[in-house]
Amino acid sequence: MENQGKKPVEVCFSPVVFDRFFDPEAIVVVTDILRASSAICTALAYGVKDIIPVPDLEKAKWYKEQGYIVAAERDGHVLDFADFGNSPYYFMEEWLSGKTIAYSTTNGTNAIQMAGEAHQAVVGSFLNLTATCDYLKEQNRKVIVLCAGWKTRFSLEDAVHAGAIVELLLKDGFETNCDSANAALDLWEKAKSDLYPYILKAAQKKRLAKLGLDDVIEYCHTPDQSNVVAVFDPTTNKITDVNNK
Amino acid sequence: MENQGKKPVEVCFSPVVFDRFFDPEAIVVVTDILRASSAICTALAYGVKDIIPVPDLEKAKWYKEQGYIVAAERDGHVLDFADFGNSPYYFMEEWLSGKTIAYSTTNGTNAIQMAGEAHQAVVGSFLNLTATCDYLKEQNRKVIVLCAGWKTRFSLEDAVHAGAIVELLLKDGFETNCDSANAALDLWEKAKSDLYPYILKAAQKKRLAKLGLDDVIEYCHTPDQSNVVAVFDPTTNKITDVNNK
Repeated sequence: MENQGKKPVEVCFSPVVFDRFFDPEAIVVVTDILRASSAICTALAYGVKDIIPVPDLEKAKWYKEQGYIVAAERDGHVLDFADFGNSPYYFMEEWLSGKTIAYSTTNGTNAIQMAGEAHQAVVGSFLNLTATCDYLKEQNRKVIVLCAGWKTRFSLEDAVHAGAIVELLLKDGFETNCDSANAALDLWEKAKSDLYPYILKAAQKKRLAKLGLDDVIEYCHTPDQSNVVAVFDPTTNKITDVNNK
Repeated sequence: MENQGKKPVEVCFSPVVFDRFFDPEAIVVVTDILRASSAICTALAYGVKDIIPVPDLEKAKWYKEQGYIVAAERDGHVLDFADFGNSPYYFMEEWLSGKTIAYSTTNGTNAIQMAGEAHQAVVGSFLNLTATCDYLKEQNRKVIVLCAGWKTRFSLEDAVHAGAIVELLLKDGFETNCDSANAALDLWEKAKSDLYPYILKAAQKKRLAKLGLDDVIEYCHTPDQSNVVAVFDPTTNKITDVNNK
């Protein structure tokens, strides 16, 4: 069905409208730049074996009881039973190399589970932008970028990242008739020449600054730090790097 | 509570996330540029007395049986029991002057009913942009722009119109810390110097073109054709022009 001509790319700005975009034949790229998807792509780049996205906290506690390393936060706060929280910097540690991490966040891990209902779910970030888009082009399928947002609200940093994906895909084999994809592209075109200053107006930047957690903003908006392609397999419930197996 | 300093302005891109924005103290401006809010503001400018927004079709039929003039469409098609559909041009007719119209559409009329739960609901359009913003400034309250969208999906023309409202309000007494308001403003800044060509990429333009209904696009994107201020009063269930009483 999706084998001829250009493939569509669409952008969904909030998980609560994802049912209006859902297509079982599509690849869904989840973006939650501040900070879940940046943390996941960092972890895999630094040698973490795989990551289990855990939507609810009861299940995250259960993983802890089973002996897993658990990263878990809500609203920017590390949970008391967790080993650490949501900063990508935590995931760079050498002791995590080769390990499996169970990971639960306010917005991102729910979106990953939703995306797992489609043909394939990929976790995207600026850190591995080109590698992810190269992978998407190879798959030759419709792509939907799902922005995790902030508690269902539109997030500027996720929309701008979606626009960066749309730009790369439209250059090579994709087309769009999706208003949110066109809007994301326009926002990315405005932001890209000076991305870090642009994103300082984002509400999530201000939330993180209040908690002293905004040291990761510039890092999370630095493209192409690795060639990780973070694919979620709902049959194993794990996210792995399929590009460096 | 909202009496000191600058008032906030926010933008909600879809009715299904409106619960995350809802504030009983706010004024909500509903925008559905193609075509409900443009049609309503046109009707009031051409002398229609008031408009009853009707979300469901059973109720629209009931109004017809009671002898009301009924405008009703779904997905661009005029319904068989209705007097006419959703084009602003229908609402310019002289025989409608002084009359009440019951009006039901795919997206806009539902959003108006939702907005009626807040402190006040206003129907906005490019056609009465400055008059609407002048009214909002006078009210000295938080403003939320609610984009009707297309079946809950993001609509480019509604977002760009929201950005035009944000620009005018930020110039005079308002501030924002809302990502979707900032994004709408950036889209408007990109679009405004050449609005009609910009909006031709909108998906709704293409839907209307398929039905031969895209003759209204340029009209609906022409700012300041009237000084109507279209306020919905949920106690009477009617939209009237409060600026030219």
